Amino acid sequence: MTSILILNGPNLNMLGKREPDVYGHETLEDVIAELEKVAASAGCVLQHVQSNHEGDLIDAIHQAKGVHQGIVFNPGAFTHYSYALRDAIAAVSLPVIEVHISNVHARESFRHHSVIAPVALGQIVGLGTLGYQLALRALLHKLQDQTA
Amino acid sequence: MTSILILNGPNLNMLGKREPDVYGHETLEDVIAELEKVAASAGCVLQHVQSNHEGDLIDAIHQAKGVHQGIVFNPGAFTHYSYALRDAIAAVSLPVIEVHISNVHARESFRHHSVIAPVALGQIVGLGTLGYQLALRALLHKLQDQTA
Amino acid sequence: MTSILILNGPNLNMLGKREPDVYGHETLEDVIAELEKVAASAGCVLQHVQSNHEGDLIDAIHQAKGVHQGIVFNPGAFTHYSYALRDAIAAVSLPVIEVHISNVHARESFRHHSVIAPVALGQIVGLGTLGYQLALRALLHKLQDQTA
Amino acid sequence: MTSILILNGPNLNMLGKREPDVYGHETLEDVIAELEKVAASAGCVLQHVQSNHEGDLIDAIHQAKGVHQGIVFNPGAFTHYSYALRDAIAAVSLPVIEVHISNVHARESFRHHSVIAPVALGQIVGLGTLGYQLALRALLHKLQDQTA
Amino acid sequence: MTSILILNGPNLNMLGKREPDVYGHETLEDVIAELEKVAASAGCVLQHVQSNHEGDLIDAIHQAKGVHQGIVFNPGAFTHYSYALRDAIAAVSLPVIEVHISNVHARESFRHHSVIAPVALGQIVGLGTLGYQLALRALLHKLQDQTA
Amino acid sequence: MTSILILNGPNLNMLGKREPDVYGHETLEDVIAELEKVAASAGCVLQHVQSNHEGDLIDAIHQAKGVHQGIVFNPGAFTHYSYALRDAIAAVSLPVIEVHISNVHARESFRHHSVIAPVALGQIVGLGTLGYQLALRALLHKLQDQTA
Amino acid sequence: MTSILILNGPNLNMLGKREPDVYGHETLEDVIAELEKVAASAGCVLQHVQSNHEGDLIDAIHQAKGVHQGIVFNPGAFTHYSYALRDAIAAVSLPVIEVHISNVHARESFRHHSVIAPVALGQIVGLGTLGYQLALRALLHKLQDQTA
Amino acid sequence: MTSILILNGPNLNMLGKREPDVYGHETLEDVIAELEKVAASAGCVLQHVQSNHEGDLIDAIHQAKGVHQGIVFNPGAFTHYSYALRDAIAAVSLPVIEVHISNVHARESFRHHSVIAPVALGQIVGLGTLGYQLALRALLHKLQDQTA
Amino acid sequence: MTSILILNGPNLNMLGKREPDVYGHETLEDVIAELEKVAASAGCVLQHVQSNHEGDLIDAIHQAKGVHQGIVFNPGAFTHYSYALRDAIAAVSLPVIEVHISNVHARESFRHHSVIAPVALGQIVGLGTLGYQLALRALLHKLQDQTA
Amino acid sequence: MTSILILNGPNLNMLGKREPDVYGHETLEDVIAELEKVAASAGCVLQHVQSNHEGDLIDAIHQAKGVHQGIVFNPGAFTHYSYALRDAIAAVSLPVIEVHISNVHARESFRHHSVIAPVALGQIVGLGTLGYQLALRALLHKLQDQTA
Amino acid sequence: MTSILILNGPNLNMLGKREPDVYGHETLEDVIAELEKVAASAGCVLQHVQSNHEGDLIDAIHQAKGVHQGIVFNPGAFTHYSYALRDAIAAVSLPVIEVHISNVHARESFRHHSVIAPVALGQIVGLGTLGYQLALRALLHKLQDQTA
Amino acid sequence: MTSILILNGPNLNMLGKREPDVYGHETLEDVIAELEKVAASAGCVLQHVQSNHEGDLIDAIHQAKGVHQGIVFNPGAFTHYSYALRDAIAAVSLPVIEVHISNVHARESFRHHSVIAPVALGQIVGLGTLGYQLALRALLHKLQDQTA
Repeated sequence: MTSILILNGPNLNMLGKREPDVYGHETLEDVIAELEKVAASAGCVLQHVQSNHEGDLIDAIHQAKGVHQGIVFNPGAFTHYSYALRDAIAAVSLPVIEVHISNVHARESFRHHSVIAPVALGQIVGLGTLGYQLALRALLHKLQDQTA
Repeated sequence: MTSILILNGPNLNMLGKREPDVYGHETLEDVIAELEKVAASAGCVLQHVQSNHEGDLIDAIHQAKGVHQGIVFNPGAFTHYSYALRDAIAAVSLPVIEVHISNVHARESFRHHSVIAPVALGQIVGLGTLGYQLALRALLHKLQDQTA
Repeated sequence: MTSILILNGPNLNMLGKREPDVYGHETLEDVIAELEKVAASAGCVLQHVQSNHEGDLIDAIHQAKGVHQGIVFNPGAFTHYSYALRDAIAAVSLPVIEVHISNVHARESFRHHSVIAPVALGQIVGLGTLGYQLALRALLHKLQDQTA
Repeated sequence: MTSILILNGPNLNMLGKREPDVYGHETLEDVIAELEKVAASAGCVLQHVQSNHEGDLIDAIHQAKGVHQGIVFNPGAFTHYSYALRDAIAAVSLPVIEVHISNVHARESFRHHSVIAPVALGQIVGLGTLGYQLALRALLHKLQDQTA
Repeated sequence: MTSILILNGPNLNMLGKREPDVYGHETLEDVIAELEKVAASAGCVLQHVQSNHEGDLIDAIHQAKGVHQGIVFNPGAFTHYSYALRDAIAAVSLPVIEVHISNVHARESFRHHSVIAPVALGQIVGLGTLGYQLALRALLHKLQDQTA
Repeated sequence: MTSILILNGPNLNMLGKREPDVYGHETLEDVIAELEKVAASAGCVLQHVQSNHEGDLIDAIHQAKGVHQGIVFNPGAFTHYSYALRDAIAAVSLPVIEVHISNVHARESFRHHSVIAPVALGQIVGLGTLGYQLALRALLHKLQDQTA
Repeated sequence: MTSILILNGPNLNMLGKREPDVYGHETLEDVIAELEKVAASAGCVLQHVQSNHEGDLIDAIHQAKGVHQGIVFNPGAFTHYSYALRDAIAAVSLPVIEVHISNVHARESFRHHSVIAPVALGQIVGLGTLGYQLALRALLHKLQDQTA
Repeated sequence: MTSILILNGPNLNMLGKREPDVYGHETLEDVIAELEKVAASAGCVLQHVQSNHEGDLIDAIHQAKGVHQGIVFNPGAFTHYSYALRDAIAAVSLPVIEVHISNVHARESFRHHSVIAPVALGQIVGLGTLGYQLALRALLHKLQDQTA
Repeated sequence: MTSILILNGPNLNMLGKREPDVYGHETLEDVIAELEKVAASAGCVLQHVQSNHEGDLIDAIHQAKGVHQGIVFNPGAFTHYSYALRDAIAAVSLPVIEVHISNVHARESFRHHSVIAPVALGQIVGLGTLGYQLALRALLHKLQDQTA
Repeated sequence: MTSILILNGPNLNMLGKREPDVYGHETLEDVIAELEKVAASAGCVLQHVQSNHEGDLIDAIHQAKGVHQGIVFNPGAFTHYSYALRDAIAAVSLPVIEVHISNVHARESFRHHSVIAPVALGQIVGLGTLGYQLALRALLHKLQDQTA
Repeated sequence: MTSILILNGPNLNMLGKREPDVYGHETLEDVIAELEKVAASAGCVLQHVQSNHEGDLIDAIHQAKGVHQGIVFNPGAFTHYSYALRDAIAAVSLPVIEVHISNVHARESFRHHSVIAPVALGQIVGLGTLGYQLALRALLHKLQDQTA
Repeated sequence: MTSILILNGPNLNMLGKREPDVYGHETLEDVIAELEKVAASAGCVLQHVQSNHEGDLIDAIHQAKGVHQGIVFNPGAFTHYSYALRDAIAAVSLPVIEVHISNVHARESFRHHSVIAPVALGQIVGLGTLGYQLALRALLHKLQDQTA
């Protein structure tokens, strides 16, 4: 059975609790609940990890190898400087879709650059928490293609 | 009835006919046919415009106002320099989702920067032609939210 | 009889219809009507061309040679990247005054740089649609100086 | 009665006496005399200040508050580095039109950037000493609009 | 009763033990003891957290919400790259004063830029460990102002 | 029979009519007539397209596929920013030789960079209109090599 | 008896009179009155100099040598370009604390860089007019340390 | 007896398990086993720490003081941004040799810059896992020199 | 009788012996033999100099004055940094055509910039060893024009 | 009789009184006395002006016209930003030799760039106060050449 | 029998004779003597070439082909700009290890960048003259691996 | 007896023979003859070396040690990139005065930067061949000071 890791980086535990004009009112728990529904209907399972610790996220990516078939990853602010996370993704050779809730290109210039994107399969930006669902669907679609 | 403009920029008429290792084998006609299915099932209508002429794309965006409720837009290489297209989007105040078939962040550095993205709602990158379908779904979802 | 080309670039057909907080409520037709009055009182004739197509604007500049004695030109967003328009102006050797309705220096940084200005006679920025009239008056003044 | 400050920065006292191929043969006194005629016909009064001292120009801007309704300002070379003049303009909240006699965009690259422009109402560049008259007219026009 | 979080980033546990010519001979314990005296005399309580782990500092900032009314924060070298800490501060909406013991502007160029400062209330730099006390006093002063 | 597309970009219709000190007195018609002679003697045919419209040039490149065996291309000012033309060349996989009449490296700095060159076979710069003939000869030589 | 120079640069005479959302409602006279209280209670004397003239500020720094034991300095916009002021401070070898009322790091990017800071003892930024008092206290504290 | 800390940063636990074309087939355990042999023959002892957590590495460096006489350090991707690790090394004043298995100068440009190198004794790059052994030998050699 | 210097810079003695995928299999001797044929048929003589020593190339350029009427020059890697060679060319006032065998614009970014090109007549890039022949023909053509 | 203006910018009144390791022990009075001797022996007269006020220096340059035949100018820190002084020199068309006592190229990077040098005749740097004498001699030599 | 070229660039003949605080007291002769011992014990032979002439070093690299199996190369200051040396190394396809005696990353910024490194096998930096021995050992080790 | 090396870099053998509008009509022999007169009158001897070979200049600098007491050096275009020459100067610890005949700051931007200047005693720029004489005098003056 297909298994997908939903990985959330720093400050995403504050979702719905911080800057609602930027990130909306939905909490991370709400987001996961929605994703679980999508997963259930698609016959796949999810694991969710959120951490404010870069090292925990690296560990989670390493452990995904052989357990999950893909990762939906919102690296939060690590997007802009964590070359260590980039290397972790390259190391495990799993398809990763990078998700950003807000339109990072319409915000401060440091948010326009992702050090993760070059090793990801793709990126979904600015579509709110819906972006996670689209990323999950896209990942399942890709995995299906490979199997077929 | 909701109506969406599918807008494709320069060289996308060559889709499936050029550089298949970068862009795949599906033609633009195949992509539109798939999108029509999604639209039909969602009870919305599509109009499709492709042009290699920047001016034609600007005209199409202007004419979308009052006719369509949103735009799925792959600006091709205009992404990287057409401030005129950016201004056209800002002028019509319609929600636009920018789509790129390949992962532009894994290619030449000039492809990493989009002058369109700051005025778009969001961006879907690197998910192949599936990206168009996700963008269409996201747009319909957003429009539904606003209506509700 | 002196004849002046009034040339407007991309998105200026949307004037008065888009972003009124940036560009005001006057339409391009209103602007031209006001300019016609100025021209009439100065005993000169105007031709007006607006296009969203860079190529059309280049063609219009080429055709101005031998027909008009000067150009009032608002290149819109082409200001920032159309080296082809710059070369067209250099090619025809006509005096050109560049006009921007809004104060481009108080907006996004990409709007601070004009590739047209080095080959223009001068620039009027941020004075609203009045800028067109001032440009027309300045052009007539310059032409008079040369004749005298 | 409307009162306008005509403010000229460093080296403009040399106008007509230096580099005539760049700045022409008219002296600053000639320019002011022409402006006085425009002012007289418009029923407004002018005060003229020229100084090579940045501090004098700042003082003049401060003193303009409550005395004048607007400023026509040629900051000379201070244009390119005097953030103190920029702050002075922001501090008094008067409309300022920046004037440059020569086309600064066709000269050395350090002249392409103005630190004043972002807090000015607008800018007139490259139209010779006529630029001062256009700026005065534009300022009177704007003040009339606000009154009306 | 007012409660303030004193937060110290990486390597500050080495204070007084490393590079005394740059950072002095006082240990972090000495600094906290001095701050406790200031707090006692001002009738407020302090909590002190030091960590070399970025994630711990983010967690501490999150937990400060609803517990403390402000943060005195020396982010150490995280100052220069931890956008995750910046986002954590923005997320909790608490007043933060950034403290640096040494004059970072007189050291290597990478130390001149703070990614934290734009979301802090203010910054105290180069005043030695006295900077912590001034920051604490300033924070209490600000909180008093808001209450008054 | 070998067929070659001679493609000329913006403002080249003004050749011989503009800035003769930069571009010489020969018209584009003269250039084509000379090229026809070379082609005739080499037993190949030419088609000539000139346009000031980026979109027309893209269309011409697309249509060259299967019709012509190579392209001699002077992109004019599009050289410096038209990533869309670059993509068009990459899309059709035809050998392209880029020609510039003047020595672009001895002119303004924006002319030193070509976005086309990385996808061209080669470049001939600064040899006047003779450059077209050399490019045509080189192209025929290359095609002969491949056939042999 | 300890004597401290309070030095204020351009536009600070407008304090409380300009942009109150950025700089607050307190006037410079209010600030000095508060500082006088602090000085009195610490048994030290103050001299206050404000000027919009860079040269006056340099003169005041030179004259401080042998008269004052330290300087609290808000260089206003000169912060960002007056290398002459920087050299004046280096020349007199007096401890200087740089004060900025607003958080310069949260404003325009030109305000992020201080040419003065590398030769100052330290910097207090964004703490409003309280910053002056903290700077005075810090200076007295430092001088006491040296005496002790 | 001489004791050396072998310190490995993020993703090095994946050695031999990830990207073998870049990093080879040897695992970290193999590397350590080889180093133990070198150490044994040189009559010194080793401690090995690997972590994906920046904070753990900083803690390990702090704890090395007084326990080990030098550090062989492969900071992985932290090389390129961890100023906190740099400060940790500066704080403990132990000789550190930086090791990179692959030739970082022949890879992506972000890998060309090390923020650690300026505070290290030296650097060994691109010599595969042999680099660790050379670093250990060099460190022992240096320590011997100092003792002698 | 017209005499042309064929000048080849560093590593071109390795032509046909190094990196054949970049530079082809022809040796420098083969290239010269081909050029001799072209020269013979055009009734001109050639001198050939190749050196890996910048100073030798400068000396050869100086000695060309009064002996040769033009230079076909492949400066190899000196293209990118030898301002001394540039000055040598400017000093002798002979027409020089710069030749590069490979398409330097499709290789590493340091190869995109030529310090020689601004003082050369023109440049032929990426057309293999045929480029030398085209350069020779172009030079003879130019010299003929001047004579005629 | 030849008359030369010796012009000294900000902080040079502190010469011999500040940073003797950088600027030496000689005072400005000593320097002028030495220059007077050189002038006397050459039969020319000197005027000396020192000011910390940019405006005073501009005024002095303007007044030099028709009075002095050349200027020996040490602009102090104004060297690096006073475009107004640069324009003043260009305006009076007098030969100016720029003098710096210390070797500015061996100090902070901001001291490596002179905005004055492009309009000066030449520059003498790093030769201590002897530089003034050399500049005076060079100026007299040049003036003699022109007379002869 | 394995043969290795020891190649030293400009100023290394001064080793032990210049700047001993940077480069130590050992002469180049001492270094070679030590390397000869290592070579002898490993059953390989060395050739040593030192030159201050870039061309000589290029010639030596060319001649190494077919004679030596690898190169230990300290390019001195050529490291930072000699693209010609880089091309020479690429041309001969021999393994090269770049050695720097001092820690170039702790010195002037121009020393941080090597144009040679991307085509070298690896780099040893900052380990004094021991670096040469380590490089020789590494090279022999690599060659052994390839043979095995 | 004091002995000075006069060292001239590439293309200076062409002095008086190339670009007389930039470098004047005097030949290098004339310059040396004039310097010999100055030397004779000062009781010192000169040696003159000119070479277009960077290596020769490095060798000459090395050989100057113990033979000459100082160097007057015009490095020609090597000024802008020869870090090897810079290192040679640093290695011999002799006072060097850098001379440029033309005002390099008024020419192309690459000529504004000297990699030699930071290790020279000083620089004389733009004073024609007189600059050599001033440099010689300054050097003798400095050497006298040290002896005295």
